[in-house]
Amino acid sequence: MINKIIATINEGRSFLITSHVKLDGDALGSELAIYCMLKNIRKKALIYNEDDTPGHYAFLPAAGKIVHTLDNISQFDVAFVLDCSELERVGDKAQEIGKIKKIINIDHHISNNGFSPLKLWDGRASSTGELIFCLFEQMKCKLTPDICTNLYAAILTDTGGFRYANTTKDTLWAAGKLVAGGADPQWISENIYENDPPAKIKLLKKALETLSLDLPNQIGSLVVTRSALRETGASYEHTEGLVEIPRSVKGIAVSILYTQLEDNSYKLSMRSKGNFDVEKIAKKFGGGGHANAAACRIKGNIETIKKDILKAINEAR
Amino acid sequence: MINKIIATINEGRSFLITSHVKLDGDALGSELAIYCMLKNIRKKALIYNEDDTPGHYAFLPAAGKIVHTLDNISQFDVAFVLDCSELERVGDKAQEIGKIKKIINIDHHISNNGFSPLKLWDGRASSTGELIFCLFEQMKCKLTPDICTNLYAAILTDTGGFRYANTTKDTLWAAGKLVAGGADPQWISENIYENDPPAKIKLLKKALETLSLDLPNQIGSLVVTRSALRETGASYEHTEGLVEIPRSVKGIAVSILYTQLEDNSYKLSMRSKGNFDVEKIAKKFGGGGHANAAACRIKGNIETIKKDILKAINEAR
Repeated sequence: MINKIIATINEGRSFLITSHVKLDGDALGSELAIYCMLKNIRKKALIYNEDDTPGHYAFLPAAGKIVHTLDNISQFDVAFVLDCSELERVGDKAQEIGKIKKIINIDHHISNNGFSPLKLWDGRASSTGELIFCLFEQMKCKLTPDICTNLYAAILTDTGGFRYANTTKDTLWAAGKLVAGGADPQWISENIYENDPPAKIKLLKKALETLSLDLPNQIGSLVVTRSALRETGASYEHTEGLVEIPRSVKGIAVSILYTQLEDNSYKLSMRSKGNFDVEKIAKKFGGGGHANAAACRIKGNIETIKKDILKAINEAR
Repeated sequence: MINKIIATINEGRSFLITSHVKLDGDALGSELAIYCMLKNIRKKALIYNEDDTPGHYAFLPAAGKIVHTLDNISQFDVAFVLDCSELERVGDKAQEIGKIKKIINIDHHISNNGFSPLKLWDGRASSTGELIFCLFEQMKCKLTPDICTNLYAAILTDTGGFRYANTTKDTLWAAGKLVAGGADPQWISENIYENDPPAKIKLLKKALETLSLDLPNQIGSLVVTRSALRETGASYEHTEGLVEIPRSVKGIAVSILYTQLEDNSYKLSMRSKGNFDVEKIAKKFGGGGHANAAACRIKGNIETIKKDILKAINEAR
């Protein structure tokens, strides 16, 4: 399969690169690494994302090249659909992109629905970035500092800073090779994790007022309301990382961040410790993710949602 | 030199293992890895620390073997003094320990004063744990899961979770080999970073009320008073990690946590981003550490101390 993908890359003329809505570090780092590789071998390439690039990923090499409108899809003969378990994850343009002749899907989500026959998929890989590292090794592709920086960022963020269960010896080995090739661990970590506006700390302070630690049920949670965002001047992307706070408490197995989207609608970001599988919970409510990190959206008032989630968690134990 | 150390290990009969006061993950992981190695080759060994083991390191293999009293020092023919730049760092027993016939000093502090002729020292190594990993490779010593877990914890904590500038390709490769040998990245990270009592989050909430962000001078700080500790039920060790909060803000180059020790006495934990060297600042006030992480103690009232530190930082730019 990997040889078929390499042949498709070599034969292709014009490439579309895309990933899922609600962009994360693995989606962006993977896209940008593929883009840099294609440019290095003098191919035509364009990165299209429905959503804007979150500010703390704007430093990634070539991030300025990403576009958010897509016309004339017929110009592309190959599409890379990265870090997507289903084609629909790319957003409103999914159907049009689906018409591109060859689609290469590189992904590590266990829930991948096999939408493309041409795929590099491994549910045990830490990240799509790690799979692309393996592809590039196989291709004997030159690992430039730009490629290394993008792939390092992809791996770093999808392993929660090498902390999740998906961190294997191969993940760390790949990270070491990327550092050897020019990725700077400190600079990348600082840009991603230590580059927050003061409003983010204000939001943290505000969110801590809602902290709930249900030790008998091992569930910790925080709530970010729309008024909390308004009052602190923070935006939706600044909620990232807040879910790690209740997770840090001894005896908490599941941590949930409830972010209010509309009056009666919440996004739930869930993280778990040990063997508890939050992907199962997210799936029950139409969401998805990984065993230790998953998300979904639920309509209703916060108290009812909390009760429903408690029930779902207790049923899954 | 490394061969001399290996010969000393092979010839030695009874080993004392110790490290610095105010124990951290590198000190403990290093001690315990050396202990496990010596036990595997059937040597007599004892770990002595002046200070108690912080709760979040109690899970480390063999941590229960550490003792805090030391009699009959004449029974030891070799002492491992680990992660210490000076013999005095081991605490009140330094002079007595200094009388042991052979002292092996393994350390990575740039300020190492060369107190022992028998030393494995590299100021560029991420951690003492990484140097011990190299020593064990050279010794062709069996890397048991217990040894791997202890060395992984040492490297993880002294690189701030692979985020500081001391994280090199060799650091990540060593970490990968330790995972291959049985270290579990998730389990270790959870035990160290996600095993806090609820009082620690209360302390975080309280400390955030003191947040100061001096963006023109790029200095961020938090203060933990004795009354804050009392009110939240937190203890001194729960201040760990708080210094990372101001560091996470865009434009902050130096982050300082002021922890009140006595009425007019503070411990300063400093972290920096990029090239700013906080070790220089700490040294000025009789402390020490590394370029991106250092500490010192200063007497005086908090406002005067803050002014003195601002002056010292501006002079060092």
